[in-house]
Amino acid sequence: MSTFNAHDIAKAAKTAFQDSQLIPSSERAHALHEIRKSLEANKTEILKANEQDLQAAELEVKAGKMPETLLKRLDLNRGDKWDSMLQGILDVAALPDPTGNVSYASELDDELELYRVACPIGVLLVIFEARPEVVVNITSLAIKSGNAAILKGGKESSRTTTLLARAISTGLAKTSVPELYVQSIQTRAEVSSLLELDQYIDLVIPRGSNSLVKNIQNSTRIPVMGHADGLCSVFIDEHADVSKAVRVALDSKIDYPAACNASETLILHEAVVNTVWPSVAKALLEANVKLLCDPISLGALKELSPRPTNLETLVSPSDVSSYDTEHLDLILSVIVLPSLQSAIQFINSHSSHHTDSIVTESEAAASMFCRGVDSAGTFVNASTRFADGFRYGFGTEVGVSTGRIHARGPVGLDGLVTYKYMMKSKAPSGHIVSEFGAGKKQYKHKPINATAVPFLT
Amino acid sequence: MSTFNAHDIAKAAKTAFQDSQLIPSSERAHALHEIRKSLEANKTEILKANEQDLQAAELEVKAGKMPETLLKRLDLNRGDKWDSMLQGILDVAALPDPTGNVSYASELDDELELYRVACPIGVLLVIFEARPEVVVNITSLAIKSGNAAILKGGKESSRTTTLLARAISTGLAKTSVPELYVQSIQTRAEVSSLLELDQYIDLVIPRGSNSLVKNIQNSTRIPVMGHADGLCSVFIDEHADVSKAVRVALDSKIDYPAACNASETLILHEAVVNTVWPSVAKALLEANVKLLCDPISLGALKELSPRPTNLETLVSPSDVSSYDTEHLDLILSVIVLPSLQSAIQFINSHSSHHTDSIVTESEAAASMFCRGVDSAGTFVNASTRFADGFRYGFGTEVGVSTGRIHARGPVGLDGLVTYKYMMKSKAPSGHIVSEFGAGKKQYKHKPINATAVPFLT
Repeated sequence: MSTFNAHDIAKAAKTAFQDSQLIPSSERAHALHEIRKSLEANKTEILKANEQDLQAAELEVKAGKMPETLLKRLDLNRGDKWDSMLQGILDVAALPDPTGNVSYASELDDELELYRVACPIGVLLVIFEARPEVVVNITSLAIKSGNAAILKGGKESSRTTTLLARAISTGLAKTSVPELYVQSIQTRAEVSSLLELDQYIDLVIPRGSNSLVKNIQNSTRIPVMGHADGLCSVFIDEHADVSKAVRVALDSKIDYPAACNASETLILHEAVVNTVWPSVAKALLEANVKLLCDPISLGALKELSPRPTNLETLVSPSDVSSYDTEHLDLILSVIVLPSLQSAIQFINSHSSHHTDSIVTESEAAASMFCRGVDSAGTFVNASTRFADGFRYGFGTEVGVSTGRIHARGPVGLDGLVTYKYMMKSKAPSGHIVSEFGAGKKQYKHKPINATAVPFLT
Repeated sequence: MSTFNAHDIAKAAKTAFQDSQLIPSSERAHALHEIRKSLEANKTEILKANEQDLQAAELEVKAGKMPETLLKRLDLNRGDKWDSMLQGILDVAALPDPTGNVSYASELDDELELYRVACPIGVLLVIFEARPEVVVNITSLAIKSGNAAILKGGKESSRTTTLLARAISTGLAKTSVPELYVQSIQTRAEVSSLLELDQYIDLVIPRGSNSLVKNIQNSTRIPVMGHADGLCSVFIDEHADVSKAVRVALDSKIDYPAACNASETLILHEAVVNTVWPSVAKALLEANVKLLCDPISLGALKELSPRPTNLETLVSPSDVSSYDTEHLDLILSVIVLPSLQSAIQFINSHSSHHTDSIVTESEAAASMFCRGVDSAGTFVNASTRFADGFRYGFGTEVGVSTGRIHARGPVGLDGLVTYKYMMKSKAPSGHIVSEFGAGKKQYKHKPINATAVPFLT
C-alpha cells in the first residue's frame, strides 16, 4: 500500500489513533458499512487479483515449494467465502461497543469522582499468513474497538491483500475516521523494523503457526497476544458415565482435528481401564482415530474379546514424546494414571494450558479438576471444542490466547481494549492531595454505581 | 536463600503454584498472619543484619560509590518503618480476595454453563532495588492473590533480605501453603537465567529505575509489568479558574517532586498568559520552583510589575529537551499553546502516558481532554498526585503501569490476577459441539447473573 518506511508508517498509525479519540463510536460503525460497500464495489478487481495469487501459488505447489492445503485458504472465491467475509463486517458493526464502559467508580471525597473506563489500546500490528480475508476481519475488529492497525499478510496473498487494503482505505475516506487508521505493509523487512517501534506500536497480534508466534515473541519488547499451540486433553475420571465419556472423547478428537481446541491426549483413571475405556476405544477406532497407547491402555485393548477389527492397523505403543505432541490429525495419545490428582499434575506438565476437560459424575472431582488444572478452559462433561469465541458468545473472535496476561482463552472484542482512569473534581477550589492525611481530610472511597462516565459529552 | 540453580528455582515455583490451587483463600490469609508473627519473632536478628547492610553501605557512600539517599531507603529501623511493614501485611490480609469472582457467565445451551472466573497468574519474578521492605510487601501481595513469587533485591540489602526471606519461609512452613511459594535469590546471574524461563515464569515485575525496567523488557519474552517513567503535565485551559489553577499546579509539582505522579510540565492556553499565569507563576516561585519557560511565558513574567523577586534566580529559558525531561525535582517546564487541541497533541507526543490534568470550567473542554489525552489518568481540576493505588481506593499498590496491556495506571491486587473459563454440562449425555450448527441446535448465550462459580466446592 505504502512506500513509506516503517517509522513513518508506525508514527502515522499512532497519530491516526490519537486523532480518532474524539470521534464517536457510531462513526466507527458507519465506517464499517462504508468499507463493506467499497469492497463490494471492487469485487471484480479483487477477485481477479486473487485469481492471479492463486495461479502463482499453483505453480509453487507444483514445484513442491508450497503445501497444497494453502490453495484452499488463499481462494477468496471459494463457496460463500466472499459473501461471508462481507457479512462478517456487518456482524462486527452490530456488536456492542467495547469502549466506554465503566468497570470501577469511586467517590474519593465529596465532589471528587474517579472512573475506570474501557478504551482502545492504541496501534495494533497484526501479522498473519495465507488467508487474505483476515485483512477484512481484523480491520473490522480494530475499527469497532477504536484501535488503529498495521496489517502484514503472507506474500502468497499479496496481490489480493493490496487490493483489499486499497478498498478499505477508499471506504474510510468517506468517513471522519482517519484514512491511515488501517495500513497494510508487504515486506518482511518492514515487520522487523516495526517490531522495534514500541513508542508507536502497542500490541502485536500474530495469527499463524507456532514458529511465527515464537519468532515474534523473541524479537520485540512490544507485548504479543497470540496462541502458540493447542495441546488439549480429556480426562476420564473413575466416576465417569460411559456414554458421556464416549461422546466427549469422540467429539473433542474428531469434530475438527486440525483445530487448536481439538484434544490430543486422552487420560484414563486406572479404575476405568476395563469399564469405560473399551467403549471409548471402540468408538475412536470406528472413527478411524489412530491411538498411541501406554502399556496399560494397550494391554486392555488386546485382551478384549472380540478384538476391535482395526486394532492392528490403528493402535500402537506411545513413546515419551507422544504426550507433548500436537497431532492436529486423527491421532490420539492415551495414558492411564492412578488418580485425579496425578491427572491434574500430568495435564499441568504436558498440556499447553489451552483447554482440558474432565468426564465425571462426581461434583468433588469436577470442582478439584476445575480449580487444579492451570488452563484457560477447564470443562466438565463437555467437549474441548467448545473453547471458541463464537461458542462462548463473544460474537466474534480475535484469536485464542494461551498467554495469561491481558487476555486468556478465546478473545473477543474485549481483548482489544484497555482502560484509563478519569477523575473530576466539582469542588469550588478543585482537589489537591496535600489536604489529605493524618489530622486532615480522609479519603471516602464510596463506590459509585455507574456504567458510563457522566462528564463525557 | 537457595543454592539451587535458576531452572530448579523456577520449576519449584511453578510446582508450588500449581500445588496451591486447591488451597482455600482463607489459608492464604492465615499464611500472612503466620509470616507477620515469624518476622516479629526474628526482629532482633533481622535488624542486626540490616545494621550490617547499612554499615557496608555507609562505606560505599563515603567512597563515593553510592548515593547518600540510598541509606535512608535501606534503613529498616528508621522511624516506624518496621511496624508499618508488619501492619502492611495485616492490611493486605484483610483486603477482599481478588480471586474467584465471576466477570462473565453465560448459558450456552440448556444445562451448559460457562463462567469466566478470576484466578492467580502463576509465578511472578519481582526485581527491585534498595528498599528491603519490598520483600515483605510483595510477598503479601503475591500470597493474597494466589501467585508464587521469586524475589530478587539489590545487593546492598542482601543480608537483610536473606533474613526476611528466611523468616517468611518459617512462617509459611506453619501453613498448608507450599514452602517454596516465595523464594528469594541474590545474584544477577540468576536473574538473567530466570528471564529465559518463560515456561515457568508468567510475569516479571521490576520495581526501580527506568534503566532497570528497560533492560528487563529488552531481555525477556516473559510479559513485563512496570512503569518506565512518569512525565505528567497540567494544562491550564482558557476557561480555567485562577484559584484552582494555582492550587492544582502547585500541588502537582511540590507535594512530592520525586514521585512519578508529580507534574514535570505546565501547559498554558495562550488566552491565560496574562490572566491566570502570573498568579500561578508567583505561587510556584514562592515555593522555590525553578521554571524553564518558553519565550511567551517568559516574556509575560518579565513584563509583570512588580517583578517577582526571585525571577532572575529561578526562571530561565527552556530548550527543546525540557519537555521530554522527568525532572523529579522542584523544576517545571512551561509552554504556551494556542488551543486545547494543540495541548492534547503536545501531551500525547511528550508525556509518558501516565497522568495528565486539565484545569477548566468548561465541560466541553474537560470531556475533550479526558477523551483525547492518551494517558492512564486524565483528571479535571485535580492534582496529578492523586494517581496512586491507595488514593484510588485499592487498599494497596503493586505499582503504576505505563503499559497498556493487562494493567494500566496504579495497579492493585486485581493486577495480579487473570481469569480462566470453567464450563459444566449438566445434560444427561454431556455436551458436544457436533450437535450444534445449521439445521441443528443453536447456541442460547443467555446471560447468567452470578458472582461466583456455583459448582466449585
